[in-house]
Amino acid sequence: MGPLEGLKVIDLARFVAGPYCAMILADMGAEVIKVESGGGDSLRLYPPDLGGTSLNFHVMNRGKKGLSLDLRKPEGQAILKALVAEADVLVENFVPGTMEKMGCGWDELRAINPRLIMSRISGFGQDGPYAARPCFDSAAQAMSGLMDLTGPADGPPVLMGVFVCDHVAGLYSTIGVLAALQARERTGQGQMVDISLLESGASLLMTAIPNQILNGVTMGRNGARGRTVAPSNAFQAGDGRWVLILCGGDDMFARFLKAIDRLELLEDPRFASNAARVANLAATEAIVADWCARHDSAEIEAAMGRAGVPSAKIASVAEMVDNPQLRHRGFIVEIPQGGGVSLPMQGPVTRLSETPVTPRGPTPRAGEHTEAVLESWLGYDPGRIAELRRDGVV
Amino acid sequence: MGPLEGLKVIDLARFVAGPYCAMILADMGAEVIKVESGGGDSLRLYPPDLGGTSLNFHVMNRGKKGLSLDLRKPEGQAILKALVAEADVLVENFVPGTMEKMGCGWDELRAINPRLIMSRISGFGQDGPYAARPCFDSAAQAMSGLMDLTGPADGPPVLMGVFVCDHVAGLYSTIGVLAALQARERTGQGQMVDISLLESGASLLMTAIPNQILNGVTMGRNGARGRTVAPSNAFQAGDGRWVLILCGGDDMFARFLKAIDRLELLEDPRFASNAARVANLAATEAIVADWCARHDSAEIEAAMGRAGVPSAKIASVAEMVDNPQLRHRGFIVEIPQGGGVSLPMQGPVTRLSETPVTPRGPTPRAGEHTEAVLESWLGYDPGRIAELRRDGVV
Repeated sequence: MGPLEGLKVIDLARFVAGPYCAMILADMGAEVIKVESGGGDSLRLYPPDLGGTSLNFHVMNRGKKGLSLDLRKPEGQAILKALVAEADVLVENFVPGTMEKMGCGWDELRAINPRLIMSRISGFGQDGPYAARPCFDSAAQAMSGLMDLTGPADGPPVLMGVFVCDHVAGLYSTIGVLAALQARERTGQGQMVDISLLESGASLLMTAIPNQILNGVTMGRNGARGRTVAPSNAFQAGDGRWVLILCGGDDMFARFLKAIDRLELLEDPRFASNAARVANLAATEAIVADWCARHDSAEIEAAMGRAGVPSAKIASVAEMVDNPQLRHRGFIVEIPQGGGVSLPMQGPVTRLSETPVTPRGPTPRAGEHTEAVLESWLGYDPGRIAELRRDGVV
Repeated sequence: MGPLEGLKVIDLARFVAGPYCAMILADMGAEVIKVESGGGDSLRLYPPDLGGTSLNFHVMNRGKKGLSLDLRKPEGQAILKALVAEADVLVENFVPGTMEKMGCGWDELRAINPRLIMSRISGFGQDGPYAARPCFDSAAQAMSGLMDLTGPADGPPVLMGVFVCDHVAGLYSTIGVLAALQARERTGQGQMVDISLLESGASLLMTAIPNQILNGVTMGRNGARGRTVAPSNAFQAGDGRWVLILCGGDDMFARFLKAIDRLELLEDPRFASNAARVANLAATEAIVADWCARHDSAEIEAAMGRAGVPSAKIASVAEMVDNPQLRHRGFIVEIPQGGGVSLPMQGPVTRLSETPVTPRGPTPRAGEHTEAVLESWLGYDPGRIAELRRDGVV
């Protein structure tokens, strides 16, 4: 049994942040109903696809049940409210105000079900001057400062190569839902969770905010170089590959010098402490760069491994999928989709020793479980469902 | 009252991932005891500092209580076990095997307190061929494929400019703790949470894993360009600033063309659909680039805002701290540290409507609350504590 067995979740969300939150809840054993209105979640359409459904959609929606419901119709909204009466959690990531226009704002929904936990993810949060603006991950990366911190020191800003604000917002939303469940054990009441992509991005900034406000120091781009210790950078090996090497303290740097047979440099005051190495960055990095240029990446990784110095070849995705550690841990899961088709994707990160967190099933087709959900959640009979279908409500 | 009021947490962790998890629990009202052994958390030492403590440490440890305890001494280990008997949660991020060497592995601790939830964060997870390797955020970025996806398309890989694997691991750990608390409501038993930095990084890869395995397509670096829609890139404005503009669909692109007074381009088959625009990427981006070059960044942002096209000037941290939306939401909090000193930093992201999530106090000094914790958790009297202090145990 998963840790959230018995929990009933309505997933009204689209694209990444909200669906990712609901998928984690599904991996944990919750029953998650993916509600799709109109043409369904547009994420289904992005290339590349598997079996007519975008891989993007697959990796955000495994193990959910699909319910189609036209939320522009009053009858659709009434059914949503009936489902809310039965639910523990609702996740949505519309632009703020959208749920209110459907008569399904927080005040309406809590009146229907005081135990409901409603997690709302948006670009900028539910209130404030930007609340009604549309937002995507990249805009949040740009506005939060993340993008200005990412890229070569002498080049233009780049995006982090993945939807980091979306994912992190989904994780904060999951935390909010679970914390609200914990509070509900005590109070018997649900509550609203309010998550912003912009704040999710800005939460990753470590010291950048106090360093700016207190010290007037504006952090900038640093390529592959670490910000606090030296050496800490990507170095090019003799075979042309990039290898990351990081000496987090004097002991690690001494082990590094021993590994490259340059222990005499320990006597050089330029390298005697991290502060000295940071002050003599070019000379410090030159020691590592020279040695790396004379060795293949595999030799470097092996030597650093023996020396206990954190190091890693910068892996392509093609290499990462064969990483022996990820293989051992079974991180890449295969999810049967029916018809003999199996879909490999990243598995759950959160591992629990007693209540398994694991994918519960394939990606739903839009509306695949409409009948089953309306019957089991609301007790609708086939005749009533056929009528709703005829009227285009489901 | 916070959602986790009454929860007792032992934070044995150092650096970023574990301390961040424990800080989120503290923001939620848990009583979090930061245990520091020997010289204390090395993160205290990294520049820049405020009042002798690193800003890095400050942003990971607000609202905790400080307990000093020499975990290399058997008496220190015995006190840790006595604290474990009283705790709900323990968070640690040592290299796997370290807790076992102190006689405090999962089997030992669960025997002391079957209700304990022990969250263990490590570079690669608690088992497998890499388990005992040291790891830092950047090595996880390199090995997970994140780094190879980040940077200019024609340049070397760069780090995401922040400790993204550390933070994301801290979030997955928090999710694990909260899910285990939920399971404990049903079973009465605690469990172990096992989080890996490498898997935390790889979880952000969206379609990269299935696209590699199913289609043989190795995703690579893409600068500031989006991967699925066009136009979606950073464009240089007339004033030299970079502005991100993203048209997520045909409707948005039409609104964009209307805003720049080029609606006639809607008739051009090269721009008629997202697929067409992706196929004619250079021509599509040239339309945006030409227009941006003839306007200032502020004009561009305003015009896109009016048109409902997601857009954002790429903000420096100096600009971000003055963002009106973040100001309105009170995202940057000021935490009094005593002596009239106040520390600005990013506040909690997870907002709950009924049980506030909010910083609970300043950063502890190492061992600041040793007496208070030993008295309130274990009932030690001042004489016994003085003895422990004399013997160098606390």
